[in-house]
Parts: sequence; C-alpha cells; structure tokens
Amino acid sequence: MTLALTAIDIIRRKRDGGTLNDTEISWIISAYIKGQVADEQMSALLMAIFFTGMNDSEVHAWTSAMVASGKTMNLGKVSRPTVDKHSTGGVGDKISLPLAPLVASFGAAVPQLSGRGLGHTGGTLDKLESIPGWNCHLDSKQMGELLHDPGCYIAAPSTDVAPADKKLYALRDITCTVDSIPLIASSIMSKKIAEGTDALVLDVKCGSGAFMTKREDATSLARTMVQLGNDAGLKVSALITDMSSPLGNAVGNAVEVGESIEVLQGAGPDDVVELTCALAAEMLSLAGIDIDDPGKNLRNGKAYDTWVKMVQAQGGNPFAPLPHARHSDTMYANSHGTVSQVDALRVGLAAWRLGAGRTRKEDSVDPCAGVIVHARPGDNVTKGQPLFTLLSSSESGFDAARYELANSWQIAKESPNTPLPHTKTDASPSYSLPLIIDRVTS
Amino acid sequence: MTLALTAIDIIRRKRDGGTLNDTEISWIISAYIKGQVADEQMSALLMAIFFTGMNDSEVHAWTSAMVASGKTMNLGKVSRPTVDKHSTGGVGDKISLPLAPLVASFGAAVPQLSGRGLGHTGGTLDKLESIPGWNCHLDSKQMGELLHDPGCYIAAPSTDVAPADKKLYALRDITCTVDSIPLIASSIMSKKIAEGTDALVLDVKCGSGAFMTKREDATSLARTMVQLGNDAGLKVSALITDMSSPLGNAVGNAVEVGESIEVLQGAGPDDVVELTCALAAEMLSLAGIDIDDPGKNLRNGKAYDTWVKMVQAQGGNPFAPLPHARHSDTMYANSHGTVSQVDALRVGLAAWRLGAGRTRKEDSVDPCAGVIVHARPGDNVTKGQPLFTLLSSSESGFDAARYELANSWQIAKESPNTPLPHTKTDASPSYSLPLIIDRVTS
Repeated sequence: MTLALTAIDIIRRKRDGGTLNDTEISWIISAYIKGQVADEQMSALLMAIFFTGMNDSEVHAWTSAMVASGKTMNLGKVSRPTVDKHSTGGVGDKISLPLAPLVASFGAAVPQLSGRGLGHTGGTLDKLESIPGWNCHLDSKQMGELLHDPGCYIAAPSTDVAPADKKLYALRDITCTVDSIPLIASSIMSKKIAEGTDALVLDVKCGSGAFMTKREDATSLARTMVQLGNDAGLKVSALITDMSSPLGNAVGNAVEVGESIEVLQGAGPDDVVELTCALAAEMLSLAGIDIDDPGKNLRNGKAYDTWVKMVQAQGGNPFAPLPHARHSDTMYANSHGTVSQVDALRVGLAAWRLGAGRTRKEDSVDPCAGVIVHARPGDNVTKGQPLFTLLSSSESGFDAARYELANSWQIAKESPNTPLPHTKTDASPSYSLPLIIDRVTS
Repeated sequence: MTLALTAIDIIRRKRDGGTLNDTEISWIISAYIKGQVADEQMSALLMAIFFTGMNDSEVHAWTSAMVASGKTMNLGKVSRPTVDKHSTGGVGDKISLPLAPLVASFGAAVPQLSGRGLGHTGGTLDKLESIPGWNCHLDSKQMGELLHDPGCYIAAPSTDVAPADKKLYALRDITCTVDSIPLIASSIMSKKIAEGTDALVLDVKCGSGAFMTKREDATSLARTMVQLGNDAGLKVSALITDMSSPLGNAVGNAVEVGESIEVLQGAGPDDVVELTCALAAEMLSLAGIDIDDPGKNLRNGKAYDTWVKMVQAQGGNPFAPLPHARHSDTMYANSHGTVSQVDALRVGLAAWRLGAGRTRKEDSVDPCAGVIVHARPGDNVTKGQPLFTLLSSSESGFDAARYELANSWQIAKESPNTPLPHTKTDASPSYSLPLIIDRVTS
C-alpha cells in the first residue's frame, strides 16, 4: 500500500460513515503536515467529516494529533493556579480585556493566547493593538514573568503551538469546512491544551452574530470541548451565552478598548459587566479561589491596576489617547417605540465594512473604525433619537455599512410581548431573555 | 466579490443542499481549468456533490461545461449513420472488440473512443495493444477514412476532447469522489457528446465486478445518461447487464483479444455472443438499420473481415501470434458439485495481481497476464477438474492472485435453488439469472 492509497482508504471510510482509529488519525495529520497527503485529499476528508461527523474517540484522537504536531508549553513553575478563557467569538465581544486583569487581581494566573478577527467577528489582538506601543509577541520568559506579576498576559500564540491546526484552519477557510462541530472543537481545544493551562472556561456564543446560531449546536460544541479538555487533564466548564445582539455599545477596535476600560473602572454597559463577572466567577472557581462577588475588584480599582501593569509590561501606554476616527455619521430612529431588535450579525458586518475587520488573513484593520450602538433591545426611543454612530478613517465603507445597519434594527410601536435579548426591564433587574443561557460542566 | 469568495459561496451552497445555476457551474468548471479555483476547493465541492447530489438541471449544466472546455468533433461528413457504445466497465468485458466490427459490417459507422484499465477492470486500449503493431492514436483524417471503410475504429480520445473531465477525473481518483452518479454520468456523457456521434448505446454494468453493485443505482445512472444524451441531441438507449460473474472465460489483455476473435469467427462463449448481439441490435436500431439477427455476420465471417481491415488500418497484424505467458498455474475443484459462484470482483483482482491491470495511471500492463475461467456458475464439476488457469510474465503475483481466486468460487453439493448468473440450464436455453437485466430508453 502506498501512502496515497492509505489517504484514499481513510477518506473512503469517513465518507461512507465509518470510524477512524487513533493510528489512522495520527498518521493522516502527521502526513498532511509533512506534505505526504495533498491539500485536495485533506479537504475531501474535511468535507466528508462535515457530513458524517466524528465520534468522541475520533475527535479526541484528532485533537491529540494536533497537539502532538507542535510544542506543549509548561506553565508548571507558575506559583499561581493558571486558568484561561476562550470565546467562540461574537460582535462587540471585548470580554477578555477586562476579564484577564479582573481574574488576575484575585490571585489566579491568566495565560491568555488570543487571535485576530476574520469577517464580522473581531479579534482580541486587533483590539489591543489600538493601544499605542502594545505588543502581542511575548517569549516564554516574558510570559513566565507576567504570570507571576501582574498575573496575566494577552498574547499571540507562538508558531510552534499546534501547527497542524494552523495549516488545517487555513485549508478549512477556503474550502467551506469551518463550521463542523468536531473540527471547531478540536481546533480550539488543541491550542488550549498545548498552551499548558490548568483550567479553562469556555464562552460558547449562540445567535445571529455567532458561529453557532442554534442553541443545541452551541451546547453540543460546549459538551465536546469540555470532554476534550477533561480527557487532557484540564478542569473545564462552559457558559452558553446569547449573541443575537452585540455585547455592549461599542463594536470595533479602539472603541472596544475604551469600553473595556470603562468596565475596569467600575462603569460600562450592564451586559459587559454581567458577562465579565460570570466568567470571572467560573474561572476563579476552577482555580480554587473562593470569591462571592467578583465585581468588587472592578469597583475598587484593583482590576484596573492590574490592567495598567499588564499593558505596560507588554509595551503599551495605558494612558495614551486611543486613535480617533476622522469620519463619522449618525443614524436616527424614524419613529417612536421600543427597540425590538438590533441584529448582531448586521452590526458586525457594518463594522467590517467600515474597516474594523478583515476579509483575508493578510489584511490590516482600521483601529478607529466601528459602530457605536446607542439604543439596544428594550430601550424606548423617540423619533430622531440617535441609533448608531458609524466611525472610520475612510468614507469608502459608509454606504455599505449604512445598508447593513438599516436592516439591523426594528422598533415596535407597543412594548413587544416576546422577551428581548439582554434587556433590563423596569420591573426586574434580570434580563428578560438571559444573556447567560446555560452552563455546561460535562 | 473576489474569485476565491465566489468558489467558497458555490461550495457552501452545494454543501448546504442548495442548487447551482448554469452560470455558476459554467464559471467554476472554467475557472478550475484556468487554475483560478484551487484543487482543494474543487475536491471539497466534489465531496459535497457526493453527499448532496445534483438535480437534472445541474448535471446537464455540469456536462455542458465539460463539453465546452474542449473541442467537439464533427463527424457530419461521414456517409454512414454513426453510433457508438460505452460500457461502464467490468471484468472480462471485451465486448467492444467484436461489437464495433459487427455493427460496421451492417453499414453503420462506429467511432469508438476507449480508455485504459484502472484497478480490477480492464481497458479496451490495453487489450488491443496486445496485437503486434496496433496503434490507438489516430488523427481526425484517419478517423474519417476508417469510418468510411471499414466503418469503425477503436482509438484513444484526443487530448482536446473534454479536458475538464480529464483534470476532474484525476482529482476525483485521489480524493475518493469517483462513485457519485451525477459525476460518473457527466464524465462519460461529456466525452461521448464531444466525440460527435449521432447515437449511443450504453452498457451499464451491475454487480460485484462493476462500479455500481446495486441494480437501482445502475438504473439511475442509465436514466441520467440517457437524459443527458437526449438533451444534447443524441439518440441514446441503455442496457443494464449483469456483472456478478466475469464475462466469458478470458480475463486479461491478450487472452481477451483471443476470445474476441473466437466470437468474430462465429464461436466463443455464449454470454459474450449474447451481449455482443444484444448491443449490436440496439446500435443498429438507433442507426436506423433494420436487422433481424445481428449474429449472422459473426457466423458468415463478415464481422471478422471488418475486424481484420480495422486492425490493419490501425497498424496491427491481425494474423500475428498474440503474446504468450511464460508462467502459468492451474487451480482445481476440491469437491464434486455445481459451481454456485465465481465472483467477478475477485477474478478481476486476481488478473490485476498477475499484472493485467494497473494501480496508477502511469503504470504499464503485462499483455500476457490474466485468468482463464474454466468453470462458470451452473457448471457441474468433479473433484480435480480445472477451475482457473493463472497466466503472467512474472511469478511475483501468483500468491496474491491464488488468494483472490480461492475466495472467488463456491461449489454447491446439490443443484442450488437460487438462480445462477449467466447460466444456461438444460431445461431452457435462456440464462436463469438474465445477463441482460433491463433496458432504459428514457
């Protein structure tokens, strides 16, 4: 049997609904990295997996093979318990920025490796690069020092973490094989397992602005990832959270840093504060640190102090003014009523059209571009009241962005009967459709 | 929209069960040939088509795009009506060799373009190349002359016939996306439409030695191909024929030429004669030539005379001895009884192991290699009677071939109750399980 024939056998088995064993999965990932299995064979296999799925044993072997393709970091020398967070990505999701310093301020170590945005979802590194001087590249010595004090970093993964995932992700991106639960789960978890953290909290988004629009898919993805983490000896839990409307008011790069600083100073939008505190509680619990009210370190300045130290340690000036857009435009409500919808996907696409996101991995982003959401679901508005402010360094994207935003919102004449996303009502301090939908621990 | 994004949109639509329009299919085939759509994107699309299929309109557009990728031959100047045959391939299927001269001997013109074998199924060109001097490459002037007299040729297609199909077939071969009915149908029919014949008879094989093991798949493939041919203005009919046992007694290259000559001289195995005459009747009917008994030109030597002229016109010596194997071995029955099975796939694999077939397109074949099947389903055998003779230029494949053959046959102590493939019984001259299973004309 030649190697080419073996690849064909593996594709055929998966195509026909069969199961691959550990040896076959380990072989095909390794052979793909070495160039012995061609891109066109791997993409055929990925499409077959899209249709026929992978069972628990296969997705475990697939993840292990990706971890084994690179180096595993050893954070064992860190005196604090290590705990990380991963979000599947959404619109206005700046939670990592206040969360890492908040959790570190209670004594845990947060070794956060993040990525860049693609399409309508933003990337944490893109956002932080709005801060003058801030640098996402840390070597392992710097990482060790930062985990000791201030207790956190947010950095780009080194190229030797799960290189198979990088090559596979680039292939999935151009072959329409991204949105498969076992492939998403193994991609995320291979990087997090290789990163060497003791514990991990997953924020699995669900709704129009997320990868997973259906709750059952989000739950299935969360369960798969929790299981993969547990198999690798990590403590893992997951929250399923709503992404039908943008998180907070700011969607973009510099504007999301600004909103994160508000949260770190004890203010900021309610939903951003709520989700930051809920994820902090999960992370601290997994780290064995018992805290009743994680929000207290937002209000007392300790989380902000940690943020300042972290930004400075990564070369940034936390006090420098953030970049400001040269061009702006505001869209207004055309009637009185209650906002019944602000669609996360449309707002994300508008920010992307304005330059906040990228179309291809090699594109750069405009740090100033974005959308400010002035009215959110459940808010009462009057005709002529601002709904959105559009921001950009260039006017070229405004027409396309206005088109997306014009289709993003609805105003109901009467108070709507159905519950609204992320909306505090006067009658109750809780959201009528909860921001945090579910918790998955096994 | 960039071209890359358009390819992704097309993959996604097909993946999600949608329908592609004519413009999209024409674009993606053309862009793939130009290298604007990558192999890995096309293989992902092919795998998506494997799972979600194509409707009539899509498979029509796909076929038309492949025809349009190259030249369409013009056989309009030929004075005789043109009619071709295509077989989906089987074990011992040498029917083209007696069929083309037989049909030409009645006044039709047979512009037969054939292929080479891959795996366990043989190729017509490989078989004919056993004849000393015979050459499969004809230019269009030679083709025109041969269609005038003797009225037929068997040749390799020129490289400018449906080049998109060539590139796609090579990709399908290594990505396990060959066995999809719409892709098989469009591959076959694009070549036959481009070849310029007026009429076409399809021999769609069904059973262990065929691409399609299930009758309903063979019928579905036949219906799709008949429709595609009719759409392109061809007269088309199809026979569904059994391929659970090898056709005839000879499986290999030179040995199948030898058996074909027997048939052309009015002898040969009953099943080869029956299928040759049935396909000839179909072809002559489509060509508007009314013949009661096509077999008469086998018995009276006219078909053989046409064969001699055709072989000579293509540079071959029809009277030279065929190559003879240096090594042979015979396997014998180990009990008395009635042969209840001779599995076509196993016999085909044995011939391939002996060197009659190829593993990769670039391999050469051993003209002497093959298997002679001495006892066929329904035959009564006694212990020690020969079942198979193995032939090869080299002894290296004998062990593997013996293994395949040892698993290919069964002998029942009593006459079996179930009908046997291709078996004439004493009680009836018809086969108890018919060789010709069905006829499809629309």
